[in-house]
Amino acid sequence: MSKGTVVLAYSGGLDTSCILVWLKEQGYDVIAYLANIGQDEDFDAARKKAESLGAKKVFVEDLRAEFVEEFIWPSVQANAIYEDRYLLGTSIARPCIARRQVLIARQEGAQYVAHGATGKGNDQIRFELTCYALYPSILAPWRIPEFYNRFKGRKDLMDYAQKHGIPVPATPKAPWSMDANLMHIRWVLGHVPPLWQTRLGMDSDSCAAVLQNHPPSDIFCMTKNPEDSPSAPDVLEIEFSKGVPVKVTHLKEGTSKTTPLQIFTYLNEIGGRHGVGRIDIVENRFIGMKCRGIYETPGGTILYHAHLDMEIFTMDREVRRIKQGLGINFSELVYNGFWYSPECEFVRHCIAKSQENVEGKVQVSVLKGHVYILGRESPKSPYNEELVSMDVQGDYNPCDASGFIKINAVRLKEYNRLQNYSFRS
Amino acid sequence: MSKGTVVLAYSGGLDTSCILVWLKEQGYDVIAYLANIGQDEDFDAARKKAESLGAKKVFVEDLRAEFVEEFIWPSVQANAIYEDRYLLGTSIARPCIARRQVLIARQEGAQYVAHGATGKGNDQIRFELTCYALYPSILAPWRIPEFYNRFKGRKDLMDYAQKHGIPVPATPKAPWSMDANLMHIRWVLGHVPPLWQTRLGMDSDSCAAVLQNHPPSDIFCMTKNPEDSPSAPDVLEIEFSKGVPVKVTHLKEGTSKTTPLQIFTYLNEIGGRHGVGRIDIVENRFIGMKCRGIYETPGGTILYHAHLDMEIFTMDREVRRIKQGLGINFSELVYNGFWYSPECEFVRHCIAKSQENVEGKVQVSVLKGHVYILGRESPKSPYNEELVSMDVQGDYNPCDASGFIKINAVRLKEYNRLQNYSFRS
Amino acid sequence: MSKGTVVLAYSGGLDTSCILVWLKEQGYDVIAYLANIGQDEDFDAARKKAESLGAKKVFVEDLRAEFVEEFIWPSVQANAIYEDRYLLGTSIARPCIARRQVLIARQEGAQYVAHGATGKGNDQIRFELTCYALYPSILAPWRIPEFYNRFKGRKDLMDYAQKHGIPVPATPKAPWSMDANLMHIRWVLGHVPPLWQTRLGMDSDSCAAVLQNHPPSDIFCMTKNPEDSPSAPDVLEIEFSKGVPVKVTHLKEGTSKTTPLQIFTYLNEIGGRHGVGRIDIVENRFIGMKCRGIYETPGGTILYHAHLDMEIFTMDREVRRIKQGLGINFSELVYNGFWYSPECEFVRHCIAKSQENVEGKVQVSVLKGHVYILGRESPKSPYNEELVSMDVQGDYNPCDASGFIKINAVRLKEYNRLQNYSFRS
Amino acid sequence: MSKGTVVLAYSGGLDTSCILVWLKEQGYDVIAYLANIGQDEDFDAARKKAESLGAKKVFVEDLRAEFVEEFIWPSVQANAIYEDRYLLGTSIARPCIARRQVLIARQEGAQYVAHGATGKGNDQIRFELTCYALYPSILAPWRIPEFYNRFKGRKDLMDYAQKHGIPVPATPKAPWSMDANLMHIRWVLGHVPPLWQTRLGMDSDSCAAVLQNHPPSDIFCMTKNPEDSPSAPDVLEIEFSKGVPVKVTHLKEGTSKTTPLQIFTYLNEIGGRHGVGRIDIVENRFIGMKCRGIYETPGGTILYHAHLDMEIFTMDREVRRIKQGLGINFSELVYNGFWYSPECEFVRHCIAKSQENVEGKVQVSVLKGHVYILGRESPKSPYNEELVSMDVQGDYNPCDASGFIKINAVRLKEYNRLQNYSFRS
Repeated sequence: MSKGTVVLAYSGGLDTSCILVWLKEQGYDVIAYLANIGQDEDFDAARKKAESLGAKKVFVEDLRAEFVEEFIWPSVQANAIYEDRYLLGTSIARPCIARRQVLIARQEGAQYVAHGATGKGNDQIRFELTCYALYPSILAPWRIPEFYNRFKGRKDLMDYAQKHGIPVPATPKAPWSMDANLMHIRWVLGHVPPLWQTRLGMDSDSCAAVLQNHPPSDIFCMTKNPEDSPSAPDVLEIEFSKGVPVKVTHLKEGTSKTTPLQIFTYLNEIGGRHGVGRIDIVENRFIGMKCRGIYETPGGTILYHAHLDMEIFTMDREVRRIKQGLGINFSELVYNGFWYSPECEFVRHCIAKSQENVEGKVQVSVLKGHVYILGRESPKSPYNEELVSMDVQGDYNPCDASGFIKINAVRLKEYNRLQNYSFRS
Repeated sequence: MSKGTVVLAYSGGLDTSCILVWLKEQGYDVIAYLANIGQDEDFDAARKKAESLGAKKVFVEDLRAEFVEEFIWPSVQANAIYEDRYLLGTSIARPCIARRQVLIARQEGAQYVAHGATGKGNDQIRFELTCYALYPSILAPWRIPEFYNRFKGRKDLMDYAQKHGIPVPATPKAPWSMDANLMHIRWVLGHVPPLWQTRLGMDSDSCAAVLQNHPPSDIFCMTKNPEDSPSAPDVLEIEFSKGVPVKVTHLKEGTSKTTPLQIFTYLNEIGGRHGVGRIDIVENRFIGMKCRGIYETPGGTILYHAHLDMEIFTMDREVRRIKQGLGINFSELVYNGFWYSPECEFVRHCIAKSQENVEGKVQVSVLKGHVYILGRESPKSPYNEELVSMDVQGDYNPCDASGFIKINAVRLKEYNRLQNYSFRS
Repeated sequence: MSKGTVVLAYSGGLDTSCILVWLKEQGYDVIAYLANIGQDEDFDAARKKAESLGAKKVFVEDLRAEFVEEFIWPSVQANAIYEDRYLLGTSIARPCIARRQVLIARQEGAQYVAHGATGKGNDQIRFELTCYALYPSILAPWRIPEFYNRFKGRKDLMDYAQKHGIPVPATPKAPWSMDANLMHIRWVLGHVPPLWQTRLGMDSDSCAAVLQNHPPSDIFCMTKNPEDSPSAPDVLEIEFSKGVPVKVTHLKEGTSKTTPLQIFTYLNEIGGRHGVGRIDIVENRFIGMKCRGIYETPGGTILYHAHLDMEIFTMDREVRRIKQGLGINFSELVYNGFWYSPECEFVRHCIAKSQENVEGKVQVSVLKGHVYILGRESPKSPYNEELVSMDVQGDYNPCDASGFIKINAVRLKEYNRLQNYSFRS
Repeated sequence: MSKGTVVLAYSGGLDTSCILVWLKEQGYDVIAYLANIGQDEDFDAARKKAESLGAKKVFVEDLRAEFVEEFIWPSVQANAIYEDRYLLGTSIARPCIARRQVLIARQEGAQYVAHGATGKGNDQIRFELTCYALYPSILAPWRIPEFYNRFKGRKDLMDYAQKHGIPVPATPKAPWSMDANLMHIRWVLGHVPPLWQTRLGMDSDSCAAVLQNHPPSDIFCMTKNPEDSPSAPDVLEIEFSKGVPVKVTHLKEGTSKTTPLQIFTYLNEIGGRHGVGRIDIVENRFIGMKCRGIYETPGGTILYHAHLDMEIFTMDREVRRIKQGLGINFSELVYNGFWYSPECEFVRHCIAKSQENVEGKVQVSVLKGHVYILGRESPKSPYNEELVSMDVQGDYNPCDASGFIKINAVRLKEYNRLQNYSFRS
């Protein structure tokens, strides 16, 4: 008798294939669910593979448009960036994937959802906090002792696969594990110490943490090596309305894109061609560890800079100071898996409100891994040429600045009087 | 009879030369003070010019070392950045210059300090808030009606100069006004509408603010045009201690720099060669206007990225969250002119405390306008290879993550119970 | 010929009566505008006085209902409190008064608005920043040299009044100046050193600031002296919807109030009877000075506590953390006069959003100057008796807490490993 | 053979007595550790009881002085308050108790520390996060299934006690469970539904959460019922240095206290006599639940108000704004158990720095449950009588305020120009 039905987030790879078979072995009926969020994958082959491994049903769902509109766009509005560098490409994909998975579980009357995320990462959290919205029970094999004690390393998975007729990848797995979607590709230092690594890990003498190995240049998929990229820039005009791009035009070629998915895909193409958005960072996981990741986020990086420019151009200074803090909140919440939480809903609402006048066009030049803002225009910017001009006084009396400065100094003078002040650094 | 002695912040240029003569005309004795903070200037010629214009005394002061050590270094520790883009090169120079000016005024028994900053800008504020620490009276001619009504445009200054034997620049003034120091060069949209400008200012039909004109590429002094920069990177290793660079090594050439001034100058050289640090932004002045600036900050940009990497690598996640907020405070305070204020002193103290363990080496590659972090190592990083490894369990039980997630979900589940939750974006 | 028409915010007191006459002397036509925001005033007498002094027109406007609904209620939602103590009773009255004044100026085609606020206070700022929304020119006599040099002290005003037939108050003015409205009465240390003052001001020996004099108990108008208040409490039930009170019931007497103005007036009555809301504080003005104020805010104090209780009872913890920050923003903005600013509009919008589920009833007991929360109930609280119970496990596994704690400790253990940790305070 | 030695945090009550015996049953050697942090307890009797139950050793440690100096004082400096109401009396006691327990465990070579905190509360977290600093293993019986499945309710504990010769409390346990120390007594809604409860829990019809039952007045130990307290106030002068009290004087009686423990004990006595510091709140636990607590914190409440007054009187406005944020950080960290964490150490350091000039005397009147600030003086306050005076112009020109206001309005006017502004609430 079945222990119940599980909807498994299935990637088509070795890990989730083994999990699919293992779950069946444990007595579950398995529905395989494969989300297309823009990764480079043969979805038909993956479907057949899942079926051949005994999946009761297979759902291949194209979530690309909703991923762009409902997850990337709010992140663009927020200028979302974790720890000043990471654009959250994986973080925002998880709630998008898990949301559909839960809907399938409900629709199919499944008792469980399952995923292949490991027990040390952020993704398990992002996945599960999303699921707890709808109360299905969760199976996380990498946290089930029967599973993780059986599969202690990659070799155990390979052996299991061979034994159960699971197709095994021809090439030995890269030393970096990878996550890909429309927004980015992420590489995390993986299972096998790489050959091209010269120094790694804990130096036993000094106890120093050393992360000086460089990833092989052929692991990058979305971006060309900047050194090999074209030596002439592409210049784009990106038009925003309510803080999200509504049109991208290649100024020289005159081509335009206007649907969210087309816009984002095109920005990926241009950014990728010029090697934009590669970073090598150490980040702090929610789970309390520091880990290293290599990211390539071509389109997202262009949008980050373009939106930032349009936002500061159109938004009142003090509104933006408050919104900047909300954007930091948003980034931390999303990184930590709280997309579906009361506080993240609240923050998204507030950020969306702040974007009402973020409207206009930004010109960007993309070249050799870098994004240059060339100029901007907006029907809703409080920028006032006459006011700021050094030649025109406008509705501005320079004497007012004296009063402004003196009143700002009142407090400082009292402080100095008390301190018997002499300069300190 | 003299109205008293004025110490004038003198640049050698047209404006402050006219101010010098005008102040003498008004009955003041003028001491000219010229700070060397790394700008490209013939200081001897400037000294002679000031003397020839009637300065009672001339002080040319080399502040470069203290500018780096006491102003740039704390900004590096703070990861100081205003509105997510501007590295504060002018903002931190003002208190450095004004501090010395006040010391000279004290030493010389002067009754006034004066400056040539205009009445619409930030610099007047930065300058004067620093001065109010020591109570000298301030003369700001650009806010004195007798002065600004006499000199309504550049032509009035030229006429005055010719009449009073003030050498007049041969070339007509560029349409962009400029501020230069060791850290950066800033260009602000200037007096004369430029010929190369195609669209500018307020479009009368749409009332849109349009800032799409591009600066001529020959205005840049510190940085090569990225398109024309070398096609092979320079790779540097930057060593930090307590959050400031103590050594920079060119890995291929093997050369090293170890004093603050040498380090920063060398980073400018490398960054400049590769066109690093050019930005075109609109920013919000303290005075409440939006204005456009073009910046080039080669060395500062390299350091910003390198320090950020070392900081996140070595600092506890939660300490950094708090420090990030303090860094935003610091940036706003410094931009607005409050370097010498109780709150900025407090913030600098706190930030310095946070940097105690920011120690180690970062490798950066500089190419075509972009800075790439290649790797890092530190004797003080909590990074733990074993803990984060996917192959080694270490002192970590995956089951703990289940509890962690479930407890984090307690609140979410209660919320969903109440909301009769269905997914919302 | 008239210099134009001025709409003067007229209080009926000595200062604004003199200003009215002085403005006429200067050649302006004066429209007197007297806002009823709940202060204890004979408005008919004030109208006649203004007319007799030569006002071209007199507007007496009852703003009490809009003051409660549009200014007090949003402050209640925000839990607005400046520097942890001041409930902003004057700060929120200024934009309410100035808004109507500007509307009258528009309607009457007046060229100016004027007010009698002094040049060292906050109220001039609050008043004028509100007015700048609609561009009328502002006359602030206390900042016009011709005025303030003529009226250097109270005696000059008295002399002027006698000379111009302005009725002079029979009693010598109290040493504390006062501002009253529906929400509070504020006393600020005033013109004449009080007789009952034992120690005041700068002690010349120690340079210490001494503010140990106590206000005479007979200056309080809204609140009874707590020592003399009833020895039995009044117990109220306050019902909230969307974060504002919609009904107040006296539990013993069974009486209820349901309109905003009635509710607030009734809370003032109950709070006043029991001496609630008296504080003696030093606060930091926007202008950079510290000043001392004595406040009595009976109803506002009751509502502050009751709303805080209901908010924490019904709002998600993390939403409230963010909302708490927004409430601090709101309080500072309003104190500093920025009620009508893009950022304060934005913050009010966000705070209102956070209040959607702040619904339920709070029981409060009021006695001898103190407000006690007795209990609360809500149809929208995530409070879950079963979950929190020590006797029922509910949907909660204690073992999860182990994982939660261990994961939270991961980061701490790494830190301790590095620090070779021993306890520090 | 022994499973090892456990140092058990022993209270002398039923729960930890049962745990002591149960741990021995399980094969552990038990060292009982009883911290005296000011609770009302017969420590000799508790020592004998522990010995009689088989404790290998018993440590009774008087931590009162260090509790005041190292835990209460930093909280006073921080103006620590959780969710605007709770003064953290239990939160700060846990790291103090656990720190000594770990030191004993080290000194005695124990393998484990254990505590009797339940699996749904905050205290388990506070306790254990402190312990993880020194890596001992932790036993938390209320999270061990063998234990919590055996002891499902109070009756099971009673039965076990009777069977094992553990003295059983004569009176049936109160429906509220209690935690007491020098700073406060906390009551949490307990095991047995109280008789005096009229409405409780989830109303089945409305699904409303109802917390309207009132605690019996005889449960309070530290504070008199305000209704029954003296009708004449006690007036104290509290002297601060570096933000902590160094002397308390009863102004009428002339008596003074000068050591930290004496000062705090005396403030408890005075506050208790007048019924100060009773609150009934719902708070948000770290674990994600809302729970209700009744607190009495007499001395801490007096100090909270007195310190706040002295801090605002002496500290620069902008320093305090930043410090206010750090105080909120501190409060959340301490509530959540992170006293011993890098971020809390950092925050404590910064807050201590902010307190350098918090020096002077505050007069407070305590009456009928309320604390009134009467006045204050300080040798280090920037308060300037002359500057703020309405009669003296001082070093202040009212005209400066015009410039200040106009410059602050620049931004608002631009905004209004764009919005075609009409007033909105």
